[in-house]
Amino acid sequence: MYDLIILGAGSGGYEGALYAHRRGLKVSLVELSPEMVGGNCLNRGCIPSKYMRRGAYLIEKFKKLQDYGIILKGYDFSLKSLKEGRDGVVRTIRENFKRFAEHLRIPIFYGKGVLKDANTVVIEPSGMELKAKYILLATGSSTSSLGNLVPDGRFVYDTDQIWNIESFPKKVLIVGGGAVGVEFAYIFRMYGSDVVLLEIKDRLLPSPDIPEESSRYLARKLKKLGVDVKLKTTIKDWLPENGRVRATLSDGSEVFADFILLGVGRKPNTESVGLESVGVEKDQKGFVKVNQFCQTSLPNIYACGDITSPLMLAHKSMYEAKVAISHMLGEESLKREESLMPKIIYSAYEVASAGLTEEQAEEEGYDVRVGVASFVANPKAMDDGDNEGFVRFVVDGEGKLLGCHILGPEAGELLHQVLHLMRAGLGVDFLSHSLFSHPSLSETIVQASMELHFGPITWLKRH
Amino acid sequence: MYDLIILGAGSGGYEGALYAHRRGLKVSLVELSPEMVGGNCLNRGCIPSKYMRRGAYLIEKFKKLQDYGIILKGYDFSLKSLKEGRDGVVRTIRENFKRFAEHLRIPIFYGKGVLKDANTVVIEPSGMELKAKYILLATGSSTSSLGNLVPDGRFVYDTDQIWNIESFPKKVLIVGGGAVGVEFAYIFRMYGSDVVLLEIKDRLLPSPDIPEESSRYLARKLKKLGVDVKLKTTIKDWLPENGRVRATLSDGSEVFADFILLGVGRKPNTESVGLESVGVEKDQKGFVKVNQFCQTSLPNIYACGDITSPLMLAHKSMYEAKVAISHMLGEESLKREESLMPKIIYSAYEVASAGLTEEQAEEEGYDVRVGVASFVANPKAMDDGDNEGFVRFVVDGEGKLLGCHILGPEAGELLHQVLHLMRAGLGVDFLSHSLFSHPSLSETIVQASMELHFGPITWLKRH
Repeated sequence: MYDLIILGAGSGGYEGALYAHRRGLKVSLVELSPEMVGGNCLNRGCIPSKYMRRGAYLIEKFKKLQDYGIILKGYDFSLKSLKEGRDGVVRTIRENFKRFAEHLRIPIFYGKGVLKDANTVVIEPSGMELKAKYILLATGSSTSSLGNLVPDGRFVYDTDQIWNIESFPKKVLIVGGGAVGVEFAYIFRMYGSDVVLLEIKDRLLPSPDIPEESSRYLARKLKKLGVDVKLKTTIKDWLPENGRVRATLSDGSEVFADFILLGVGRKPNTESVGLESVGVEKDQKGFVKVNQFCQTSLPNIYACGDITSPLMLAHKSMYEAKVAISHMLGEESLKREESLMPKIIYSAYEVASAGLTEEQAEEEGYDVRVGVASFVANPKAMDDGDNEGFVRFVVDGEGKLLGCHILGPEAGELLHQVLHLMRAGLGVDFLSHSLFSHPSLSETIVQASMELHFGPITWLKRH
Repeated sequence: MYDLIILGAGSGGYEGALYAHRRGLKVSLVELSPEMVGGNCLNRGCIPSKYMRRGAYLIEKFKKLQDYGIILKGYDFSLKSLKEGRDGVVRTIRENFKRFAEHLRIPIFYGKGVLKDANTVVIEPSGMELKAKYILLATGSSTSSLGNLVPDGRFVYDTDQIWNIESFPKKVLIVGGGAVGVEFAYIFRMYGSDVVLLEIKDRLLPSPDIPEESSRYLARKLKKLGVDVKLKTTIKDWLPENGRVRATLSDGSEVFADFILLGVGRKPNTESVGLESVGVEKDQKGFVKVNQFCQTSLPNIYACGDITSPLMLAHKSMYEAKVAISHMLGEESLKREESLMPKIIYSAYEVASAGLTEEQAEEEGYDVRVGVASFVANPKAMDDGDNEGFVRFVVDGEGKLLGCHILGPEAGELLHQVLHLMRAGLGVDFLSHSLFSHPSLSETIVQASMELHFGPITWLKRH
């Protein structure tokens, strides 16, 4: 008898197991296989893609090396070396976690966990039964097809399959300008591929949580690097031809490419887990219905991560696992939170958002003000040869931070310093008098807050 | 008649001028020459050194390129290119500021500003007189000699002269293991020089504000990169020999080097500014005496930056300029602050500290607890091939943050997210339940806070 069984040892599952252990619960994990510990994020998502993105970033910086007195004699690419490095990091993280769990005496049961009743999980195919007071569903999500784009690992790849390609494509056609699409477009382009990137909507990263400015900056940069960005465009039809792909696009043009990468569509793993039989309710799209404490329709069964909403982020799952476990312990201070959840994309820029965009804040009826500061004149960014982008604050009439949108160097880390302040309810009055170091990228954050607190001091606005 | 005259257009001066302008004051600047606008930090300090440090960092990363599938065919160094790039950034920042000041109608008077009375500044040699209600002294500091080590720009360089060398030294002897010494040791080593680094004390960065762990990590890394780090060692004697330097060290050994770089000793520029004649008091070491609002012994004359204390940091001066100007405006909420002032060194690691060390906190009588988390297992740091270092928190019995010490990737930016929380009086209870993104370096900050809030979950401590 456990205090807690967690179905799924992905980001939410393993973070939840560690947190439950910290809080004194007797916890166990159920995962499909030893190779899937860490889930999609670790094994075929954010971790391997951020690894390759680092390589792409370093390649892009080669253009500036001469300015640093470094004269390159040339370079080649080796996908084999890249994959070895990448898979080494993934393996290290996965094996470390398994050893750590063993060390902490957190058992991981391998197989498919299915609910038998509200306190019992059956491991298939062995039929072994585990019992617990609480169950946390952390089963994640899976890739899906898109019309006649059915991933086959030869002509059409999804994000489960793309890691195994044997050589860099001469040309790749990427469908979907969301996070996956823009990240791989940058990676493939920097490693020498021609890239066509299709997005059905009128901008890249077409999420209401991400401001249009971020989309525009990113599209401009990707185009400058040679990516053929086609907005409001889809694949009308495609067929294999001489081992490659010939695709007809919705604008009537044709693209020949080595393969198509599908960067769209994931579905929550909420089938065949026994939810229906024990009475855990789902919504029409297959997501598990949860309250603000991640509790499902059965009070001792909780859910976190990709199965609770379309916001499929590893750290959403990690956070929700903590929300659920805190609630099991009788605490109500932690609650589900999607608006402040950081959304960070690592493409030709780091694109980071948390909280409301200007449009969202207006819709919610706030007296909205926006403050922007640029990295262009930031001395640290200039020193680093990486001075493009901006910090954008959305505040209410009193200067309270409602949203923060950063695009540029280290945006993904910089966002956190604002995120903490948003969560603490602090505003630009606090931030504009903040201590900071010089030179630092963080100065641009202080500067954006000063623009709001004291009014703009810019070339254009004073005359 | 101005509201405010600022003597010195360095970091404190120009940041102060912009802040005064924002706050509606009629302000003017006095600076020695157009080439010195921006002061030491911009022209021969943090900005050009951070530029070269970026080059050094990129060179160091070359060792890992193969892991990212990038096979280099070789490379050469060109000091000429490096200097062009570096000086271009410095010039751009300097000229941008001058144009911006002109645009905002903030006059810059060139010459030496000397106090005639409490409201009058004479510009030498022209003799022009300016009058103002308030005066802010922001005259900065200068390099000084060290015994028989007198900078001559040939055998002995100081940090005013080092920028002009014509070629990378084959071997350089650096005196002083403080910020300047460890930064240049890394830069020269990465650009191919042999480096001997001397520090008279028993550790690098021998400041009570920086924990011994940071010193030890940095020394270990510098040694691994081939820097000959010699602690408790000084130059006993030296002489020129065949156009190079032969130095006898305190341990009896001899070092032959192309030149000696002096990384120690700066003195405040408080002579011949007319302080004595108008009655602005100085301490025994020549620093201007100021109260917590940066006010000198004359109530309408303020001082900021290098002349107020031995903590000579550009951003200390920027912050104190704001403290002074706020006080001129009748506000008392901003006060001088040295403990929380971030101290950031960019060497083979970024080394960042703010607030108290463990030792300082104990001396102040706190019930001290320390929490540490490592970057070694941080997935983003692993992806970036940059997973060395730590986050170290010093908290009181209630978990309030007293100090934060980060060594490793982006330490200089990461520190700011903790700095804001320290300033807001928040603690590890807040931070340990924080939202964060995965993967991110910031996760290690959350992890360090969880170690403190929930107790350690480490390999060693549980068994």
